[in-house]
Amino acid sequence: MRVDPFAEDALHCDDFLGGQARIWQPKQGLGYRAGVDPVLLAASVEARPGEEVLELGCGAAPALICLGVRVTGLRLAGVEVQPAYAALARRNIAENGLQGMILEADLASPPAELKAQSFDHVLANPPYFEQGKRSVSPDAGIELAQAGALPLADWVALAAKRLKPRGTATFVQRVERLPELVGALSTHLGSVEVLPLASREGRAPRLILARGRKGGRAAFRLCPPLVLHAGASHLEDGDDYTNVVKAALRDGKPVSFDG
Amino acid sequence: MRVDPFAEDALHCDDFLGGQARIWQPKQGLGYRAGVDPVLLAASVEARPGEEVLELGCGAAPALICLGVRVTGLRLAGVEVQPAYAALARRNIAENGLQGMILEADLASPPAELKAQSFDHVLANPPYFEQGKRSVSPDAGIELAQAGALPLADWVALAAKRLKPRGTATFVQRVERLPELVGALSTHLGSVEVLPLASREGRAPRLILARGRKGGRAAFRLCPPLVLHAGASHLEDGDDYTNVVKAALRDGKPVSFDG
Repeated sequence: MRVDPFAEDALHCDDFLGGQARIWQPKQGLGYRAGVDPVLLAASVEARPGEEVLELGCGAAPALICLGVRVTGLRLAGVEVQPAYAALARRNIAENGLQGMILEADLASPPAELKAQSFDHVLANPPYFEQGKRSVSPDAGIELAQAGALPLADWVALAAKRLKPRGTATFVQRVERLPELVGALSTHLGSVEVLPLASREGRAPRLILARGRKGGRAAFRLCPPLVLHAGASHLEDGDDYTNVVKAALRDGKPVSFDG
Repeated sequence: MRVDPFAEDALHCDDFLGGQARIWQPKQGLGYRAGVDPVLLAASVEARPGEEVLELGCGAAPALICLGVRVTGLRLAGVEVQPAYAALARRNIAENGLQGMILEADLASPPAELKAQSFDHVLANPPYFEQGKRSVSPDAGIELAQAGALPLADWVALAAKRLKPRGTATFVQRVERLPELVGALSTHLGSVEVLPLASREGRAPRLILARGRKGGRAAFRLCPPLVLHAGASHLEDGDDYTNVVKAALRDGKPVSFDG
């Protein structure tokens, strides 16, 4: 018998930011369960109190909620195509005492309600694997969460359209897709910056945070890597994060592209 | 009275690779005098004895000569549009006891002699500034060396055309042009890798080495930065290079994209 991954007893409420945020997500059965990536994504968005923020493909909205907990008075908005995730995102926003609106919509055909709005910041953690470059899951939900149907360039183009002048779009993504992501950010936005995330000092980064600014004219900038774990090898307790990363994950501190 | 920067008494013969290579170049009067960049470029090309190597826009050919000194029995070729630089390159090849051919030609219209050949490796240190994004020099020679007329994507396309299957093209360039360079390498070649060059630990890199392979199908890879100088600040003797860089500059050792 197939278990509904969104049934109440199949959900788990996880602590984020040292318990400042609590986020319901499916225990298993889906390809994606939020970990460090959306927290660091949220930590890198330089939102100021009262600003309007949009997350594309927000899932259960961990990034949106971490950002809303760190910066007070934000107006949060999320777009999510899967109804069960959209429902979880609404629940998570409400249970964390935040103000927000989740639109259930396909990014490939944004609804008029979304097109009528503009935002100071857009953020997104798009699926990490391109369609056709991985084995296809027989579960349509898993397939959508892992691979997504929309090219990365379309995520960036949509973000750019929904931004106010001087607004920023920030993405977390696998380093393998840097050329595609940086190309799209350079085409649709400006002042592009990449912050590589390396598991250890001296290791090749596996993820990047990448940001562009609407109307930005600064030269492309590659930041020194943000190193996630201290020491040369993995510690058993899994809590060997470097100080900057620990502060972001446990205390809800920001992460800067400027080091 | 204007001094000819290529007159015999206006030239200087500089030691490279701890004196293993000696390269004539103008003392002054031009925007470009070879330093560390072409040496690291040459150090990063994984050429094997007997292979054929082409440098685009070779100037006085310091990179080609450093590579030819490190790897024995290479067949060197260079393309240089400025006759005085092409002459210097020929002199430098001869005086270093290497075998090579310098074609005097504009990269925008490669001659039939170049089109008839293919190479195991192409390397280039294209001008660092885009035309129209800097003040124009009244001296046409300086202008050409600093800014160049050809878009970076055309350098990459030309390199790709002249490569044998599985051959590599390696570029050194300002990090600001990473999006353009990586985009072109992804379009015309594959298995693209970027090695950032940072002046000091924790500093944002100012230069990159970027490589693509003809027919390569590996995912894009971003390497940990290669740090040039040890310590936190500049030492007076200017010889505070890190060990890997010192080995490349002084002993002619290779630099690896694999750390």
